[in-house]
Amino acid sequence: MTHKLLILSDLADQYRTLIEEAQLPDLILESTPTPEIDIVLGEPSRIKAALASLPAVGWVQSIWAGVEPLLDPASRHNYILTNARGVFGELMSEYIIGYLLAHERKIFQKHEAQKNKHWEDSDTGSLRGKTIGLLGVGSIGAEVALTAKFFGMTVRGYTTGSETSTHVDMYFHPLESDSLLSGTQVQQLAAVLQSFANGLDYLVNILPNTKDTRKIINADLFNALPPHALFINVGRGQAVDESALIEALNQNKIAGAVLDVLEQEPLPKDHPFWETPNLLMTFHTAAPSLPEDIAKIFIENYELFIEDKPLKYQVNFERGY
Amino acid sequence: MTHKLLILSDLADQYRTLIEEAQLPDLILESTPTPEIDIVLGEPSRIKAALASLPAVGWVQSIWAGVEPLLDPASRHNYILTNARGVFGELMSEYIIGYLLAHERKIFQKHEAQKNKHWEDSDTGSLRGKTIGLLGVGSIGAEVALTAKFFGMTVRGYTTGSETSTHVDMYFHPLESDSLLSGTQVQQLAAVLQSFANGLDYLVNILPNTKDTRKIINADLFNALPPHALFINVGRGQAVDESALIEALNQNKIAGAVLDVLEQEPLPKDHPFWETPNLLMTFHTAAPSLPEDIAKIFIENYELFIEDKPLKYQVNFERGY
Repeated sequence: MTHKLLILSDLADQYRTLIEEAQLPDLILESTPTPEIDIVLGEPSRIKAALASLPAVGWVQSIWAGVEPLLDPASRHNYILTNARGVFGELMSEYIIGYLLAHERKIFQKHEAQKNKHWEDSDTGSLRGKTIGLLGVGSIGAEVALTAKFFGMTVRGYTTGSETSTHVDMYFHPLESDSLLSGTQVQQLAAVLQSFANGLDYLVNILPNTKDTRKIINADLFNALPPHALFINVGRGQAVDESALIEALNQNKIAGAVLDVLEQEPLPKDHPFWETPNLLMTFHTAAPSLPEDIAKIFIENYELFIEDKPLKYQVNFERGY
Repeated sequence: MTHKLLILSDLADQYRTLIEEAQLPDLILESTPTPEIDIVLGEPSRIKAALASLPAVGWVQSIWAGVEPLLDPASRHNYILTNARGVFGELMSEYIIGYLLAHERKIFQKHEAQKNKHWEDSDTGSLRGKTIGLLGVGSIGAEVALTAKFFGMTVRGYTTGSETSTHVDMYFHPLESDSLLSGTQVQQLAAVLQSFANGLDYLVNILPNTKDTRKIINADLFNALPPHALFINVGRGQAVDESALIEALNQNKIAGAVLDVLEQEPLPKDHPFWETPNLLMTFHTAAPSLPEDIAKIFIENYELFIEDKPLKYQVNFERGY
């Protein structure tokens, strides 16, 4: 049986070259949507827009980790959705360590002092002995935990999943919840998150955007953090109550925030984040999807697909990741 | 036999407390110089100034790694000099990784963009696959090499010593030189350094200040580096030809420099470094001497001293480290 692939990405030419080089059996690369196309590789928002004209699609490989557009209940979900995983952990770890060190080493303060010809030899801090809390311990979180241990940190992990990473010193779990939380469950979840946050030097969000993660990082959580804590968000902007974050920073409830992801991207020009004190933004560049990495995932999954084996990195439409 | 210790440091009170807590046998802590004092712990420049009034001193423990003031040929050298080692590697590694990531992740550019309310989502770089060259592979260099391997870099090491670190992928050695180099030897050393520098993404100097390391980082070396290379100096300022560095940066022969140490510290207000493009200074804060670390070294050495065993971290006055 022959399969027909459509690539929907700004980097379609690069993906096409990489996939053609792999000489995959029984695969034809199409350039435009046709009713016979059964596989799509690309960016979730583009794929969502094209799905209505692709009735034969049985498998979609997202080139991103986040697949929110495809989870829309108004879209069809009768195909296998796989996302990109396993390739972002090292890049995310570099990003997180880079900004933790920029904070501890006072990189911006030293630079300002230099502009003023001031010999600024005040002491700087270290990562060693600090405690980092990871909201989300999937493949990215496990890599961040490994890196944090390398630098001598204590690692706490909050996850709904199993305790697979051995680099997490202490795990925290929410209650099981397939439906909306009852009042008591909400209180118990808040208590778990409070004890997770208590005494953290660094809080890092790696959670995907699901109904259970929306605004999980809120005023209660910021109040539970010590005032010297730094918050980094590399998961999804929807996990943060942005008003609560602005208040926490304005009132020095935490020392700073580094946001790679935001509720609305690009950020509107009139959003207060542009001028919130001690807030840095990096414009969704923490872990780019590199075609050479993602093409490997597609090729591996295609080989499973034609052998009727289960694909890697399948997304559960209900769960959202 | 009773020993008398004098502490010469801005942090003398902290050192006194830490050493008193250790309850070392037969040790009296003196507060002022007396002719009976036989051990000194402190900052090299202060010790140099006091040595003339301390005729009985047989052992000096420096709280710093660099001991240049005590190497002055005009000072007396008939005592055992030990310096601080083994405690700076992790701090230096954090510093180096922090500034490499600030460079790759465009931390300053992203911050500038934010001030201008510009959504700056240009691609950023990674440490993975890069090649780092370490000038000096002692205890600090070995720790930096370990950290560089953790982040997936290729490591080159230039050292006069043995190849003790297994995290260096390729070693480079100068010729043996106990006296001044002849013309041919100078050419051969330059050739070794050129092949060491050729193709490096990052050049890191960790060398001490000795007659063999002065201005070892010069115009020839900068010319051998690729234009995208970043230079970091955590060794000693005297190892760098500062005029050649200014020229290399002004002419974009290298991409940038991060200097923790300088030929003259604090830097004079009229020095061109304050305004040299793509040059960052951090004012000798990369690896502070923490009293709790240095006191441990002193206590360990004191126990060897009273048992007439060889002390750790002895400095060879001739060699300079």
